[in-house]
Amino acid sequence: MPDALIQHPFMSQSGLAASRDEDFVRAMLAFELALAETQEAEGAIPADVSRRMRACLESHDFDPSAIAEGVASGGNAAIPFVKAGRAALPDDLKPYWHLGATSQDVVDSALMILLMPRLERLDALLARCRRAALPLMEAHARTPMVGRTLMQQALPITFGVKVAHWALGLEQARRRLATLAEPGLPVQFGGAVGVHSGWETLGLTVMDGLAERLGLSAPVLPWHTDRQPIHALSTAFDGAAGAAEKLALDVSLMTQTELGEVAEPAGEGMGESSSMPHKRNPVRCAMIRGACRQIHGHTTVILNATAQPLERGLGEWHAEWAPLLDSALLLEGALEQAAVLLEGLEVHGEAMQRNLTVTGGAIMAEPVTRLLTPHLGTEQAKALAAEAAEQARQQRIPYADALEALMASRHGELSGEIGRADLEAATDPALYLGSSQAQVDRARAWLEDR
Amino acid sequence: MPDALIQHPFMSQSGLAASRDEDFVRAMLAFELALAETQEAEGAIPADVSRRMRACLESHDFDPSAIAEGVASGGNAAIPFVKAGRAALPDDLKPYWHLGATSQDVVDSALMILLMPRLERLDALLARCRRAALPLMEAHARTPMVGRTLMQQALPITFGVKVAHWALGLEQARRRLATLAEPGLPVQFGGAVGVHSGWETLGLTVMDGLAERLGLSAPVLPWHTDRQPIHALSTAFDGAAGAAEKLALDVSLMTQTELGEVAEPAGEGMGESSSMPHKRNPVRCAMIRGACRQIHGHTTVILNATAQPLERGLGEWHAEWAPLLDSALLLEGALEQAAVLLEGLEVHGEAMQRNLTVTGGAIMAEPVTRLLTPHLGTEQAKALAAEAAEQARQQRIPYADALEALMASRHGELSGEIGRADLEAATDPALYLGSSQAQVDRARAWLEDR
Amino acid sequence: MPDALIQHPFMSQSGLAASRDEDFVRAMLAFELALAETQEAEGAIPADVSRRMRACLESHDFDPSAIAEGVASGGNAAIPFVKAGRAALPDDLKPYWHLGATSQDVVDSALMILLMPRLERLDALLARCRRAALPLMEAHARTPMVGRTLMQQALPITFGVKVAHWALGLEQARRRLATLAEPGLPVQFGGAVGVHSGWETLGLTVMDGLAERLGLSAPVLPWHTDRQPIHALSTAFDGAAGAAEKLALDVSLMTQTELGEVAEPAGEGMGESSSMPHKRNPVRCAMIRGACRQIHGHTTVILNATAQPLERGLGEWHAEWAPLLDSALLLEGALEQAAVLLEGLEVHGEAMQRNLTVTGGAIMAEPVTRLLTPHLGTEQAKALAAEAAEQARQQRIPYADALEALMASRHGELSGEIGRADLEAATDPALYLGSSQAQVDRARAWLEDR
Amino acid sequence: MPDALIQHPFMSQSGLAASRDEDFVRAMLAFELALAETQEAEGAIPADVSRRMRACLESHDFDPSAIAEGVASGGNAAIPFVKAGRAALPDDLKPYWHLGATSQDVVDSALMILLMPRLERLDALLARCRRAALPLMEAHARTPMVGRTLMQQALPITFGVKVAHWALGLEQARRRLATLAEPGLPVQFGGAVGVHSGWETLGLTVMDGLAERLGLSAPVLPWHTDRQPIHALSTAFDGAAGAAEKLALDVSLMTQTELGEVAEPAGEGMGESSSMPHKRNPVRCAMIRGACRQIHGHTTVILNATAQPLERGLGEWHAEWAPLLDSALLLEGALEQAAVLLEGLEVHGEAMQRNLTVTGGAIMAEPVTRLLTPHLGTEQAKALAAEAAEQARQQRIPYADALEALMASRHGELSGEIGRADLEAATDPALYLGSSQAQVDRARAWLEDR
Repeated sequence: MPDALIQHPFMSQSGLAASRDEDFVRAMLAFELALAETQEAEGAIPADVSRRMRACLESHDFDPSAIAEGVASGGNAAIPFVKAGRAALPDDLKPYWHLGATSQDVVDSALMILLMPRLERLDALLARCRRAALPLMEAHARTPMVGRTLMQQALPITFGVKVAHWALGLEQARRRLATLAEPGLPVQFGGAVGVHSGWETLGLTVMDGLAERLGLSAPVLPWHTDRQPIHALSTAFDGAAGAAEKLALDVSLMTQTELGEVAEPAGEGMGESSSMPHKRNPVRCAMIRGACRQIHGHTTVILNATAQPLERGLGEWHAEWAPLLDSALLLEGALEQAAVLLEGLEVHGEAMQRNLTVTGGAIMAEPVTRLLTPHLGTEQAKALAAEAAEQARQQRIPYADALEALMASRHGELSGEIGRADLEAATDPALYLGSSQAQVDRARAWLEDR
Repeated sequence: MPDALIQHPFMSQSGLAASRDEDFVRAMLAFELALAETQEAEGAIPADVSRRMRACLESHDFDPSAIAEGVASGGNAAIPFVKAGRAALPDDLKPYWHLGATSQDVVDSALMILLMPRLERLDALLARCRRAALPLMEAHARTPMVGRTLMQQALPITFGVKVAHWALGLEQARRRLATLAEPGLPVQFGGAVGVHSGWETLGLTVMDGLAERLGLSAPVLPWHTDRQPIHALSTAFDGAAGAAEKLALDVSLMTQTELGEVAEPAGEGMGESSSMPHKRNPVRCAMIRGACRQIHGHTTVILNATAQPLERGLGEWHAEWAPLLDSALLLEGALEQAAVLLEGLEVHGEAMQRNLTVTGGAIMAEPVTRLLTPHLGTEQAKALAAEAAEQARQQRIPYADALEALMASRHGELSGEIGRADLEAATDPALYLGSSQAQVDRARAWLEDR
Repeated sequence: MPDALIQHPFMSQSGLAASRDEDFVRAMLAFELALAETQEAEGAIPADVSRRMRACLESHDFDPSAIAEGVASGGNAAIPFVKAGRAALPDDLKPYWHLGATSQDVVDSALMILLMPRLERLDALLARCRRAALPLMEAHARTPMVGRTLMQQALPITFGVKVAHWALGLEQARRRLATLAEPGLPVQFGGAVGVHSGWETLGLTVMDGLAERLGLSAPVLPWHTDRQPIHALSTAFDGAAGAAEKLALDVSLMTQTELGEVAEPAGEGMGESSSMPHKRNPVRCAMIRGACRQIHGHTTVILNATAQPLERGLGEWHAEWAPLLDSALLLEGALEQAAVLLEGLEVHGEAMQRNLTVTGGAIMAEPVTRLLTPHLGTEQAKALAAEAAEQARQQRIPYADALEALMASRHGELSGEIGRADLEAATDPALYLGSSQAQVDRARAWLEDR
Repeated sequence: MPDALIQHPFMSQSGLAASRDEDFVRAMLAFELALAETQEAEGAIPADVSRRMRACLESHDFDPSAIAEGVASGGNAAIPFVKAGRAALPDDLKPYWHLGATSQDVVDSALMILLMPRLERLDALLARCRRAALPLMEAHARTPMVGRTLMQQALPITFGVKVAHWALGLEQARRRLATLAEPGLPVQFGGAVGVHSGWETLGLTVMDGLAERLGLSAPVLPWHTDRQPIHALSTAFDGAAGAAEKLALDVSLMTQTELGEVAEPAGEGMGESSSMPHKRNPVRCAMIRGACRQIHGHTTVILNATAQPLERGLGEWHAEWAPLLDSALLLEGALEQAAVLLEGLEVHGEAMQRNLTVTGGAIMAEPVTRLLTPHLGTEQAKALAAEAAEQARQQRIPYADALEALMASRHGELSGEIGRADLEAATDPALYLGSSQAQVDRARAWLEDR
């Protein structure tokens, strides 16, 4: 697959740099060495074995491509890795290598080891999004813009409240991931059939010690075919993808030429079109949306592979690896883009203002109707509000002017009751923002309470 | 769609009974009445309005099919329901009906109202599974059976430890759902564009009061296009589906004619085949697996609809309703079957015993090799263990007999060192169960600590 | 599930009317009666049996709800239906009822019987879309509008060519469905394990005859666990969903308030908002998009259930029924909306014209640069084109005016070489439409060649 | 991502070797050079331009990693590739480079160019499966085995008919792919907004010529946002995945230790377990199932990305690339394994025979009942057949013996009517194979008629 050209651009580069074949080998080695250390600490293998093993293998030059060749015949990377490790050990250490472990223990634990720093990075990126969102939200807590439902102009909101909703989505996703990351992803250690054959109660003791040594959590039991931990992780990735995608969707809609309310941060060459010099494409949004859609596909694989047969999956387990790792890297890539968006978004308040007027005043017809109703009754009030809005739009005059003129010609009797100031107030989007400010305040309090 | 014949059998019948069109109308009404009450309590509408409204509408005979006809033109059920409700009110109450609310507030909140009892039921079913699993697990904590990886016989486990793993998966799923259910699903109330237009800070106050009145939780902000709550709920349903599906997958494999280790609970007519009198089909497993696969599809819809544009989805929102409700009902159906399975599973210990011997003794070759290695070295030990296993299988004799004979003819010198008792111990699956008992104990402690 | 309020609005009402429980029972009966007729014709059962059976059962009042109750114990509707049918027959006919058939034969064939008219209807709807698209495409073959890539204004196209692309997508989907519908969906008949146990070569003969009698096609072999036919059908539904969804996506984007280039057909009450009188929501687009997203979820179920074990699925088969039928009804619903959209779409040419000018002239900078390059070199030409566009946008003057003024002040020497007419030509979107007309012509030829 | 260890083992190695970054660059170059040649042939650019361009660039050393760095800012590989290509050309050729094309033209066409040999390979692999299946099917056309529904023993079939069903699934998938591959995948060429801006009718002419030069097909119109071709291709991949997965599912079930009816082809190291010397894991099945599940996830991405907005996707398009290419490589990998399985499957007829007897005779109770019914009536016949089967199973005696004994003791009167030969015939699975042979014959005819 043309990885660097087709797939990797969507992924985090630092994530990729830390998740290469070499790193997977290193993670498998970390598992095996920690296993020996734990067993030694429990008196299950002779003293000094684990130190000698580490001395011998940490500097050993495992060849990932040789290991890769062995994957096909056994179906996973642990089998050739274990062989290569054993071959590199002196004979007297060989019996203590991979002792009591099975391939799935190695692969599952290595994946968790690889994913731990990815979770840290995801947390940091989501925190960075939150940090960027807070001042953006504050700065625009009073910036009116039009709210749109079913993509039609509806009533005013503020840009600040929109940012608050983005931030809330992302922060909910962060907290959901944190509940999984904070205790540590679980170590996997159960031996051939998950019951520590030949080890009796020492099996669980070793499992717990191993978790501690590796900075992972100790599960209640080995989870070789209880894939709830994988399901929870994968769907938490997907939730964060949804939050990033929401941001990208809104930004790409608001960036449309005719709306022009925001623009992606300028950057050399970013969003250039080779053929059309006037364009600045929302490339970051495209990358986010492209990545997140792939995450949804990967998650679907996990959903359908959660039920695994008996004591080891026959394909279900194998199907998890790439979707899980790819999801993490794609999400990391998407969140890098999201953070840059939030940190550098160009906000065009004047365009927001302009868009508030494109309907003449129709989006303010509701508060105008409220103003007129006590005097004219609901039906007449609605009709007058609508007619004036249409005149305002056609003649490109302020809605208040159109209302004033129409009222003068039709309802002179109201001149003493509804003044110019009343009309201006009723037609001013900036005075019809509901709980926008209160929502920003509440969002801030929640975002900062972590 | 032939609902009763095609779709409903997979769903919980009590869930269906409580989730009819009438109940959805009732839930929408509950929302509107609670809204008026909250507004009245806040002094936003005149005293006694809400009481009179309730008096008028609680006994009103809403016609779901008339409302259904109105759905197509507005795109959701709230629009025709609100019209019908207003029409049924005396004129002086009409202005206080649906005040400050929008269709999405009504539909989203009504869905949450409908789902609350479903979550309770799911919790009860999962707790029932746990209650059923505990004695089953204990009863078979020492029942040896063969563990199978990649569906091949591997090494012995106990049936109890298998039950423990099932129970853990289901209980993890229960706790995940409980973290969503315990605070209550969130009320939705934001008005036309989610900022309580025309209500200023009172908007959030009403939202909070409304949540309390309806037994729902108050979200930080309205979540009209922040669908993290829906994503979390839907994926938690899916996780539980995965746990039920794992149980069904194992049971259906163990029920295979050649294995015969368990059978679904007998029941009149259950699993009968019209053409083949000897068959007892694992119909409950089929129903669970059929339901859960549909849940995965529904969840995929939610994953892809989490990002919703601007202040209301344009199809993304609409796409959520049926998958969300159907997932709950399908899951409830699957868990009803799972509970019955766990409560009444027929366990055939003698078949488990028989299957432990079908390889002659090959599955015990590992401990036998361990026994012989100090005397013969690894390679010779392995070869002898394998050869004896093959003879045991072909001659249908106990593995210990085959080993004894082979050792006598080849390694007479060992007769004093390895006795019959040693051989019987090494070839007895019941003595090679690793941490099976310890896992059962640990599982029990965790399952009971809730 | 609140079907009529939540799920059914997305589905075709005529499809629903023809796919009720009663109709499924009728389809199962059609299968059984045709089976007896075919067996009689082959001499496998006595003369006149099938006629008497039909006489007895066609008027029999099968009770779907009684049958529904029997579904749970056997796992499918055929088992209780077959029992009910047998009970209704005189004793001497009972032995010839359901002879040689198994439940899957009945259910699969009944589904195909139910789906045949749905396929006809889908074909008719897609043909109706094509009929509606042709004049719309012709009428606007010369209506310029802006083309948008990554949702940014790019270069001019015509509205006609956009319609052509919609029509092509829909017609490709129609032809794909037609290749499945024209030979007829396949009958399923294989008996208990798919090999016509007890029937020898007569089994295939009966299968073929049965297909002919039922207006279905004869498969090469029974397809009880060869689900390629289901996969092909389900994914063809999904392809059509994608084509409808593309139309809805474009229309909803073009309908945005700030663009206003098209509007959904007006209809009483269609798209009304209860709170905002000025809004006309693109409700049909929302319904299409809501339906199609659900279809994708259903299709995902089928993808993951294509591989079915041995001679009958254990849940995989059961999981197919609802997704398959629901997909058909949702697609039919979506295409009904699509047809109405294409037949009645309001096209606002003046808004298209207006939107061509919102960038000042930047979208025409490419042809202007082409004009200037021979005289100024590429770099200067590009710079001048861009500067003039910016002035045009800010001063709200025609791009040609801005160019003329700028050229006069900077490059007086060009006055004789590039005239006003050249500038107007280069800045006129209507003269830069590329192959738009040719594409419309080519699309028409292809659409009409069926 | 640990590609070589985690992801690549599932993929075809030859596919990977032919789908590297270098090859994608080469495919983009092929597109651009063929474009210049076509334009030259049409007189749109000066003579000899294309030859000089080819001379200059074919030997040019494009640096994929430098191009990769440029992907992030433009969002696709074409932008930096086009820049690099232009930089490498002499100034007088630069204006004719990438003339009239846009990034999507380059990327989409390059993907189609890369996929053409993959489709050829997939066709060859599926044909190889067919070639392997034919003799296997013939060899076992009379090998009885038990048919299993809902994974329970049901009635006899032959192994040959099972192979026939596998072969039919695979061949249907091959023919579906062939209908897409035979005309050639479509070239994409439409320019910035898909209407060949500035090229008028020449645009379509160039598109057609380009298709011919590249060995691709000419679409009716450019398909930049009409993704029906991608949908059809991706779902056809998925269909083939389903057929391969069905084979792997059956083989892995039949390979279970207790069944032992088939085994994966032996191969050095294949399926070895590091800890359990007796195991031979069905690794090829695991690889197939692991690959195909990932394909389903990728396909889900395509289903949800078929509707793309306006004149270019904003993420929808970007999301297609990796799933599409990965699907092809995963499918190729799965089919390589499938071909090896079919070519080298170990068939254990004796185990099939043994499994036919494990129920005593219960699976033959149906034909026995048929035999007895004329003499005893249905109910008594059924009861006797069942009782004898149970005795046969418990006493491990032939079913015919049990029947004979039981009949003698209960129904002595029948001794003259039903003889030993009748009993043996009725209880002999090899005499109750229905249309198995006829199905094999019919399958062969269809498989060979291509």
